[in-house]
Amino acid sequence: MQKASIITIGDELLIGQVIDTNSAWLAQELNKLGIMVVRRIAVGDNERDIEDALNTASDCRLVILTGGLGPTSDDITKPFLLKYFGGKMTVHQPTLLHIQYLWNEVFKRELTLRNIKQAEVPDTCRVLPNSAGTAPGMWFEKNGTIFISLPGVPHEMKTIMQEFGFPEIQSAITGQMVLHKTMETFGIGESMIADRLMEFESNLPNFIRLAYLPNFSLVRLRLTAIYAAHYSTEEVLSSKFLELTTLLKDVMVSEDDVPMEKIVMDMLHSRKKMMATAESCTGGYIAHLITRNPGSSAVFEGATVTYSNRFKTNLLKVPEEIINTYGVVSGEVVKEMLHGLLQVSMADYGIAVSGIMGPDGGTAEKPVGTVWVAAGSGKNQLIQKFHFRFGRQQNIELTAMNALNLLREVILMEESGD
Amino acid sequence: MQKASIITIGDELLIGQVIDTNSAWLAQELNKLGIMVVRRIAVGDNERDIEDALNTASDCRLVILTGGLGPTSDDITKPFLLKYFGGKMTVHQPTLLHIQYLWNEVFKRELTLRNIKQAEVPDTCRVLPNSAGTAPGMWFEKNGTIFISLPGVPHEMKTIMQEFGFPEIQSAITGQMVLHKTMETFGIGESMIADRLMEFESNLPNFIRLAYLPNFSLVRLRLTAIYAAHYSTEEVLSSKFLELTTLLKDVMVSEDDVPMEKIVMDMLHSRKKMMATAESCTGGYIAHLITRNPGSSAVFEGATVTYSNRFKTNLLKVPEEIINTYGVVSGEVVKEMLHGLLQVSMADYGIAVSGIMGPDGGTAEKPVGTVWVAAGSGKNQLIQKFHFRFGRQQNIELTAMNALNLLREVILMEESGD
Repeated sequence: MQKASIITIGDELLIGQVIDTNSAWLAQELNKLGIMVVRRIAVGDNERDIEDALNTASDCRLVILTGGLGPTSDDITKPFLLKYFGGKMTVHQPTLLHIQYLWNEVFKRELTLRNIKQAEVPDTCRVLPNSAGTAPGMWFEKNGTIFISLPGVPHEMKTIMQEFGFPEIQSAITGQMVLHKTMETFGIGESMIADRLMEFESNLPNFIRLAYLPNFSLVRLRLTAIYAAHYSTEEVLSSKFLELTTLLKDVMVSEDDVPMEKIVMDMLHSRKKMMATAESCTGGYIAHLITRNPGSSAVFEGATVTYSNRFKTNLLKVPEEIINTYGVVSGEVVKEMLHGLLQVSMADYGIAVSGIMGPDGGTAEKPVGTVWVAAGSGKNQLIQKFHFRFGRQQNIELTAMNALNLLREVILMEESGD
Repeated sequence: MQKASIITIGDELLIGQVIDTNSAWLAQELNKLGIMVVRRIAVGDNERDIEDALNTASDCRLVILTGGLGPTSDDITKPFLLKYFGGKMTVHQPTLLHIQYLWNEVFKRELTLRNIKQAEVPDTCRVLPNSAGTAPGMWFEKNGTIFISLPGVPHEMKTIMQEFGFPEIQSAITGQMVLHKTMETFGIGESMIADRLMEFESNLPNFIRLAYLPNFSLVRLRLTAIYAAHYSTEEVLSSKFLELTTLLKDVMVSEDDVPMEKIVMDMLHSRKKMMATAESCTGGYIAHLITRNPGSSAVFEGATVTYSNRFKTNLLKVPEEIINTYGVVSGEVVKEMLHGLLQVSMADYGIAVSGIMGPDGGTAEKPVGTVWVAAGSGKNQLIQKFHFRFGRQQNIELTAMNALNLLREVILMEESGD
C-alpha cells in the first residue's frame, strides 16, 4: 500500500487558534485511492522546521503540504519551496489572468501587488489551478516523491484537489486498494461491545482489522481490509461484516457510516414524512444538525427554540400552570411542547427537549445534565429522562443524539406495531 | 522560551474519521504558560511510528501524547510506553478504586477485565488522576524531557491537564512569558488589511510579531510579544496594539479575541436587552452559536426556524401574498419575518434571515448564495442583501456572521443617533 504524509504549515495551527480540518478530509479521500496517511506533521512558519518535516516525510510516495500560501507577509512557504526544489520564480500567466478576472469582475476591488504575487510560482513545479481562490496548488517531484503544496483555506484546498490533485495522483500512483465497512451502535459503551466481540476479533483474518470509533453515545465499528493479492478479500470482508452486524443486531442503528440525523432523515424521506423540533436546552442545535444537510427541506418543517418560558407559552401554548406545577424541565412540559409543536408546524413527527446544560442552573433535585425528551407523532410518543455528566457542549451534543435516537425508536415502533 | 511537541496516536485520527481538537486546545493552554508548541505529529496505532515520533520530539522540554489508551484491543500505547521508559506494569490502587466506584455507583454496570486493566501503569510513571473517566494520565521523564501520556477523549484529557497536568508543568518548567493581544476586523479582506499595515509591520520591534487569522468575514490580528529580558515588553506591546487599533478603527469590531456572537451578546447584556432570531436558511445555526455560551438565557428569548413557507405564515404571520409577490428570499419577506418575530418573542432585538444555501435551489435571478438579512428593533432596522460564493456549510457560517454584525451595527447606530 502506498504511503503519504501530510504537513500543515502555519503558526495559527500550532498555537491552536485554528483547528485543522483539512488533514482529516485529505486522509479520508486519499484512503479511497488506496493511499494510507502514515504521518501528519504540523509545523510553524519557520523555514528550518518546514525543511525537517519535508525531509522526514520523504520516505513516502506522496507528501501533501497545506497552508503558508496566503497573501500576508508572515508567509515564507513559497520562497522556501523555491530553495528546496530549485528553479526560479516566474509569473504563471493563466493564474495571473484568473486573479485579474476575480478582482475586476467578481470582487470589484482594486488589485494590489500582494495579489499579483500570488501568481508567482517556482518554474520547477506544475501548477494545479485554484478555481475557488487566488493561490494555486503546486506539484513538485524529487527523488521519487511527489510533493503537492496547497493553500490552507479549506474550500480552496478541496477544490484544487478534487479538480486536479486526486485525478493526477491516481494516474501517477497505482496503489493497493483498501476496503472499509462501517456499522453504528447506539447507547452501549465501547468496552461492553469489545467484550461481546472478543471471539469475533480473535477469529479475524490478518488482513482485516476492527476499529472502534466512539462519538458520544454512538459507536462506529469499522472493518478495514487491505488488499494483498487476496482475490476473495471483498467476499471475506462482507461475510465478516455480516457476522458483526448479526452479533450486534440489538444495538445497531445503521449498517453505514452516517451521522445520527441522517439516519432519521432517511427514515422520514422514505416514508414521505416531515418533522420539526421544539428545543429549549439544545438551543437550535438539532435543527442545525438537520439543516446542514442539503435537501433537508424535504423532511424538515422547522423548529422553535423556546429559550424563555414566555416564548414557550406564547408559541407552543404550553399551559403556564404546567410549567409552575412540574417545573420547566419535566416530562409534562416536553409532552406539552411536543403537542404544541405538532399543532403549529403541521409536521408528522416532532422532538421536544428541555434540560439544564450547565455550568449553572442545576439544583439538588435537578442537577446539571438533567434532560427530558419527548419524541413522536400525534399518535405515539416516547418520553424519556436523561442525565448527562459532562460539560455544556458535550451535554448539548449528547441530548441531540439521544433525542434523534428516540424519534428513530418511535418510528420503528410504529412500523412493528402496524 | 520552552518548547513542546504534541503527538497524537490513533488510526482514527490518521484516516480522518475523527478531527483532532485536542491539539489546538493544548497548544493554546501551553502558550499561556510560556511554552511554545513547535511541532505536532500524528501517527497511527503502530509501535515503530510512535517510537520515531517520540525520538523526534525528544529535542523539546515537554512532549504530550494523546490517545491510544482506550479500553479496546487496538490500543498498543501502554505496552509501548512500558518498553520505552522501562519498569514493570503494576496496578495503581487509587485508580482501581476510582474505576470500581464509577462502575458500581455511577454507571451501575458490571465491571469487566478490560476496565480493570485501565488501572495498570508502568511503575516508572507518576499517575495524573482522571476524575472524568477511567484511563489515568501518566508522567514520565527521560534525558531531561517530560513526557505526559493522556487519553484521547477530549473532556477527560482536559480534566486531567487542568487538575494536575498544567499545575505540575508550571512548577517543573519555568519558561519565558508570552503576551498576546488580539483585535478583530469585519468585512475587509486579509490582503487589504495587510496593505494598510505595511508601514506598521515594518516598524515592529523584533520581539513582537503580527499574525493574520482570517475566519470568514472576520479577521483576527494578533500581536505576540515574547519576553527576552525586555523589561518594557508589556508597555511596548500595549502601545503597538493601540497603534494597530487606531489604524483599523473603521473596520474594528472588537479589541479582544471573542467570537462574533459574544460581541453582540455582551452589547445586549450591558444594555439589559433581549434578542431572538427568525431563521430560514441558517436552520438554527445562529441560535446555536448564541446558546452554546453559558448564561445565554439572559439575552436570548429564542428562535423560530421557519424552514417551510407554511411555518413562516403560521408562526411569524408573514402574509402569503408577500411571499408570492416577492419570493421567499427577498427583503420584503425578511422584514415581515423580523416584524412577526419581535411580536411573538417579545424580544427587544431580532435577526431574520432567508436565503439559498446550496448546492441546489438557485435560479438565474437568485443564484445559490443569495441571502437577505433584516436586523433591528421595533424602531430601527437594517435590511441587507448578501451574495456568498461558497459551499453550503460556509454559506451558513458567513450568513450567521454577517447577520450578527448587522444587528451590532443597528445597536451602535441607535446609540449614536440618541
